[in-house]
Amino acid sequence: MAKNKKQKVKRPKALPPRGFRDYFGTEVVERNAMLRKITEVYQHYGFDPLETSAIETVEALGSFLPDVDRPNAGIFAWQDEDDAWMALRYDLTAPLARVYAQFRNDLPTPYRRYAVGPVWRNEKAGPGRYRQFYQCDADTVGTPTVAADAEICGMLSDTLEAVGIPRGDYIVRVNNRKVLNGVMEVAGVLDPSDPSKYEAERGIVLRAIDKLDRLGQSGVRALLGEGRKDESGDFTGGAKLSDEQADVIMNFMDARRDNGGATCARLRELVSGSDIGLVGVQELETIAELTDVQGYGADRLLIDPSVVRGLGYYTGPVYEAELTFEILDDKGRKRQFGSVAGGGRYDNLVKRFTGQEVPATGVSIGVDRLLAALREKGRMDSHANGPVIVTVMDRDRMGDYQTMVAELRNAGIRAEVYLGNPKNFGNQLKYADARNSPVAVIEGGNEFEAGVVQIKDLALGAALAANITTNEEWKAQPAQMEIARGDLVAEVRKMIARADG
Amino acid sequence: MAKNKKQKVKRPKALPPRGFRDYFGTEVVERNAMLRKITEVYQHYGFDPLETSAIETVEALGSFLPDVDRPNAGIFAWQDEDDAWMALRYDLTAPLARVYAQFRNDLPTPYRRYAVGPVWRNEKAGPGRYRQFYQCDADTVGTPTVAADAEICGMLSDTLEAVGIPRGDYIVRVNNRKVLNGVMEVAGVLDPSDPSKYEAERGIVLRAIDKLDRLGQSGVRALLGEGRKDESGDFTGGAKLSDEQADVIMNFMDARRDNGGATCARLRELVSGSDIGLVGVQELETIAELTDVQGYGADRLLIDPSVVRGLGYYTGPVYEAELTFEILDDKGRKRQFGSVAGGGRYDNLVKRFTGQEVPATGVSIGVDRLLAALREKGRMDSHANGPVIVTVMDRDRMGDYQTMVAELRNAGIRAEVYLGNPKNFGNQLKYADARNSPVAVIEGGNEFEAGVVQIKDLALGAALAANITTNEEWKAQPAQMEIARGDLVAEVRKMIARADG
Repeated sequence: MAKNKKQKVKRPKALPPRGFRDYFGTEVVERNAMLRKITEVYQHYGFDPLETSAIETVEALGSFLPDVDRPNAGIFAWQDEDDAWMALRYDLTAPLARVYAQFRNDLPTPYRRYAVGPVWRNEKAGPGRYRQFYQCDADTVGTPTVAADAEICGMLSDTLEAVGIPRGDYIVRVNNRKVLNGVMEVAGVLDPSDPSKYEAERGIVLRAIDKLDRLGQSGVRALLGEGRKDESGDFTGGAKLSDEQADVIMNFMDARRDNGGATCARLRELVSGSDIGLVGVQELETIAELTDVQGYGADRLLIDPSVVRGLGYYTGPVYEAELTFEILDDKGRKRQFGSVAGGGRYDNLVKRFTGQEVPATGVSIGVDRLLAALREKGRMDSHANGPVIVTVMDRDRMGDYQTMVAELRNAGIRAEVYLGNPKNFGNQLKYADARNSPVAVIEGGNEFEAGVVQIKDLALGAALAANITTNEEWKAQPAQMEIARGDLVAEVRKMIARADG
Repeated sequence: MAKNKKQKVKRPKALPPRGFRDYFGTEVVERNAMLRKITEVYQHYGFDPLETSAIETVEALGSFLPDVDRPNAGIFAWQDEDDAWMALRYDLTAPLARVYAQFRNDLPTPYRRYAVGPVWRNEKAGPGRYRQFYQCDADTVGTPTVAADAEICGMLSDTLEAVGIPRGDYIVRVNNRKVLNGVMEVAGVLDPSDPSKYEAERGIVLRAIDKLDRLGQSGVRALLGEGRKDESGDFTGGAKLSDEQADVIMNFMDARRDNGGATCARLRELVSGSDIGLVGVQELETIAELTDVQGYGADRLLIDPSVVRGLGYYTGPVYEAELTFEILDDKGRKRQFGSVAGGGRYDNLVKRFTGQEVPATGVSIGVDRLLAALREKGRMDSHANGPVIVTVMDRDRMGDYQTMVAELRNAGIRAEVYLGNPKNFGNQLKYADARNSPVAVIEGGNEFEAGVVQIKDLALGAALAANITTNEEWKAQPAQMEIARGDLVAEVRKMIARADG
């Protein structure tokens, strides 16, 4: 047969591009519910929403993509008809910098804004790693005061509790890039009079600190010195610091004490002699004071020198929210859930456009990770919210079924009439099952004449339903009851309440 | 001076690409509020949310962009690293077809889904016409019954009322592409045995019917015949129908009667002899019956033969929601607000992927147009929702101000502490003004000692505020009052209630 066909019809593949996925039903509802809770907190703190378009000029986006060294690598970009390059945004901060530069004379100062939306990364996709994902950011632009940083740290704590992470299951860690710079100065890998000197070494030091969790003290120490061979035999070059220099860095990472005051005192010793370092410690002390007075104790917020954050553009306080409860990883080992949000102060992003330094600080929540955490903790209220299904026993009375369904909806009950082929009643029940329906409504000709309807508790009957194909068998189920047509809304409501309870 | 500079720093332009814009504060809040109301109705009707990614393969999108003849014209597309073409979606229907084809074995049948999100068109931008805009769709896939079309028409009516368009200010018009095909057959421009014959003529006829509003009877008649010269002198070629043929079409457009039944009866006369036409009339009768029985009378829903809808892919019922109240156009002339939503039955979209016909019907709401209509009617509840501003009289007591603000927030009041430079008190008031704040809280050293604070009704004082620069002048304003520090939350709440009332 096939041989006789001259041309085979070429059909498009029904697949999204690699690294993209679809979100159905409850997934969408849950994410939206979480985002609403987050933005309600942001709104409450005086932040205003901003929605920019997905597309920016490549020129405006610049080459600030975190963790990517090549300019414009990692983004989806193309040329417009007039040859200008456009690209999909890779985060919500770059568009904010563009907007603030564009509208700085019209926006209030400081400008508190929040933004929610997808961002795109042209990177290799992997399991659980997609090329489109949501971010949910809050930033304060136009003020240098660390009170703004402190406010965002407190707000981040409030936000996590608002979405359902209980106190004790998370911690907001705060550090300061200036303290780190002070330590670098003391360690001899930062020369304030020539900031570009030792840049490579500092990069290695930063990445090493960031890997403390994974590599432990000895691994980090190796990276600070000659380098490190990992389990696979790959060698990572080190910063080639002397033992004394490395000691300074190791002491810094080990500087956390029982409370913010004690940690700051220890840091003050470590950066002694570095102006920038002392400014940094002073800022951390202010953040600790401001958050303390509002009751953000050590169970919620910590000054923690081991927080580095990958981004090169941070210039002052950096912060990170970590979930501290344990989960099982792919290999069944226990580990802490880990980071779900992070941010910090970046005073140079707007400068690219205007030439003037505009101080700014902000946080970005990893929406999908936080959602995963809430599901892990059973905090999503995702009980069956399927519609009541009004089944069709007699296709000529579609109007009557529509009337029933309208009554139910008008009473605030999610409901629909079965719109597939009504011939096989079993299919109607399978459909109700697939939709997670709490209740099915059945009205044959006899019921119609008698002014009654059957209603069926599907939560009770779900297991059996797939095997039932006739109305008679159906009626025999214990979860089914006959009610007066006039009581439809009241009785369905009762049955749903029972299923929910 | 400039001559001495060897290199001028090249700064990026702080602008979005041409045809894109940003949405601030209230604009975002209002759109989200409207979308929430719409999706609540959709959800209530049993539709489930689906969120696909912004990017699809060009192959999957196909060449279905409405009103564009060239394949893939009008979309933003680029090549991935492996040379596959990807593109931003231009509507929400094409991704639905891909998803249904991909997951058809797992999805319930029929599949009721709704989707909300931006879509992108690579078209010339103009005033009020952007290259990214929102759509909000509901579709029922997998059932041929016109009860599904009737349901969506009723839901569209409910949706418009839910967002705030009062009954009487809108009308849902319904037609059927099959009736139109029947009329084409009777007029001799459709040969059921060779559907590709007269395709060009039918295209001209469709576009002519769609322009009835704008061109009037005589203009349409000209397009059905030899063609038409417009005011600018441009000539549009006609379908070259004979007078008798054109009469059939004109009679069709004029077939609307006082109620659905009468209109259908007239249509039945007009398509007499065409099988497809009679099927179409039968479908319209069923829709009229089903919506009648649910109380969607002629004040909400009309069978209207003049509705064509531009899209070539519609195969059965088509529908359109029009707002009937008058607005002034750019030139100050009164005109009806016009269409805000439309849709219809398209049975061939999924077939591209699977080879099997999958009947589907759905509606798309033009989000920005509906928002504009609601603003026009004063239906957006966009009263000032700025935060209470706790001003900073003494920057060393930032902790105290933060505590006040936390008390207000914990009581459910949107509030923030002023985080700009507090030196110039007038700037703090200007800021409060720019933020649309209802209340400012003021606590200097003396007040602090005395255990009191000043609160100021900014709605009353806004006009004067810009000229006041000292605390003393400020106190003299009548809208200001001194209260006990312990009464802060209660008194601020009262003042906001007064401002709202």
